[in-house]
Amino acid sequence: MKNADLPLGVFDSGLGGLTVLRAVQEALPSENTIYLGDTARVPYGIRSPEVVRRYCFESLEFFERQGVKLLVLACNTATSVALEDVRKRAAFPVVGVIEPGARAAVKAGPRIGIIGTDATVSSGAYQRAIASFSPGCSVVARSCPLFVPLAEEGWVDDEIAEQVAQRYLGGLENIDALVLGCTHYPLLKAAIGKVMKAVPLIDSAIETAGEVADTLSRQGLARMTGGPSEHRYFVTDKPQRFSELVRRFLGRPVEQITQVELT
Amino acid sequence: MKNADLPLGVFDSGLGGLTVLRAVQEALPSENTIYLGDTARVPYGIRSPEVVRRYCFESLEFFERQGVKLLVLACNTATSVALEDVRKRAAFPVVGVIEPGARAAVKAGPRIGIIGTDATVSSGAYQRAIASFSPGCSVVARSCPLFVPLAEEGWVDDEIAEQVAQRYLGGLENIDALVLGCTHYPLLKAAIGKVMKAVPLIDSAIETAGEVADTLSRQGLARMTGGPSEHRYFVTDKPQRFSELVRRFLGRPVEQITQVELT
Repeated sequence: MKNADLPLGVFDSGLGGLTVLRAVQEALPSENTIYLGDTARVPYGIRSPEVVRRYCFESLEFFERQGVKLLVLACNTATSVALEDVRKRAAFPVVGVIEPGARAAVKAGPRIGIIGTDATVSSGAYQRAIASFSPGCSVVARSCPLFVPLAEEGWVDDEIAEQVAQRYLGGLENIDALVLGCTHYPLLKAAIGKVMKAVPLIDSAIETAGEVADTLSRQGLARMTGGPSEHRYFVTDKPQRFSELVRRFLGRPVEQITQVELT
Repeated sequence: MKNADLPLGVFDSGLGGLTVLRAVQEALPSENTIYLGDTARVPYGIRSPEVVRRYCFESLEFFERQGVKLLVLACNTATSVALEDVRKRAAFPVVGVIEPGARAAVKAGPRIGIIGTDATVSSGAYQRAIASFSPGCSVVARSCPLFVPLAEEGWVDDEIAEQVAQRYLGGLENIDALVLGCTHYPLLKAAIGKVMKAVPLIDSAIETAGEVADTLSRQGLARMTGGPSEHRYFVTDKPQRFSELVRRFLGRPVEQITQVELT
């Protein structure tokens, strides 16, 4: 099998990374994909960097056994803590979710807003990425803890979602772009957009898919055969509301999901 | 030191158990207390029963080293998974958070509502406890995932909290009692009460404190000396918004909190 025929790997600590997988599948419909969600050990945001790094290495080994041509770390915590280490160990390109969103924000800048979980915002990973691309940008970051459960409940475009968005984002309209720095947030775009009005929303999932496409093209790794693409799904546990969440984040149901052990 | 002079231990996977500690301190103002929150490994609800049991045993060893006269498992998951096993190992009485609330509900019954996290509701622990006390009771259980982040944000008595409560609890008014089956929910009593109107709300924290008082009195373990009481606080990690959450759940700030390792 030629390298270009291998699937793309997409890894997340849970199911939120399915929004990134969805963007990758939409941007690159002829590519095969393998998704792995470490649902038995989610959330990574509350764990120490050493533990997150170990979990990421175990996932890398899983994708090495499967055989992939590129790996997406579709998890903000994994990206901010372990991207460089995973890149050093991997024999294929590894794309994170932070740089693509930060790069797009800098193009829209100079006044940039970032929203994400407590863990992502306080890690400073987006702030560092933006500063490295363009030190002149100003950054205001806010964590929005209610957004994840709203997305998981599917309460994404109603009065409650809008009021929560208003409370978190009110007064933030005076920026040039707002980065949705959490894999769950693309589901809340409508409610966020109503508060932010004309401010462009930067969807990390879409920007990451764009970076995957660029990387494949630059390295001559794009799949050229015209056959239908295959998508495989793996998780380390099937928790409460599992199928419902998969459908919500991926935008469609998945027939077969395989449970695996990483350790 | 006499046994009666030893402190009470209160254990939770995180900080929510501080609502139980608060109820214990208010019901028994002359007792000394030791709180342990396993904040490095929260939430327990997503872990396997074997792992939860192991974590509870490690906490039990911590309280054995400290020396306590009674231990409260102020965590629904720990109680439903490990109460019996911890009781077998412990040389002192162990009180969980499920039986006290279930017992109070049965008195108010026969039509009982239970609200809690996905993990608690689907564990069936409250349903089993109620059936064991009174098989004739009917039980309707609902999980309310937004309530935990609302309580943590302190958005507990406003329009958003009321709308969320309305969406979760609407149509449930035709019951004789509603058990707040999660340590976070007492903070949302006002919003829940507005929806449930005349339905009595059973606060597991207060019921658990009552059971602690009964047990101490029955076993002659109540502290009789008149000196001021001492309260010590331990956690396994100090995550984001830590002090803010302590203040919210305990109702006041705590000056000194010691970080410990359990393993």
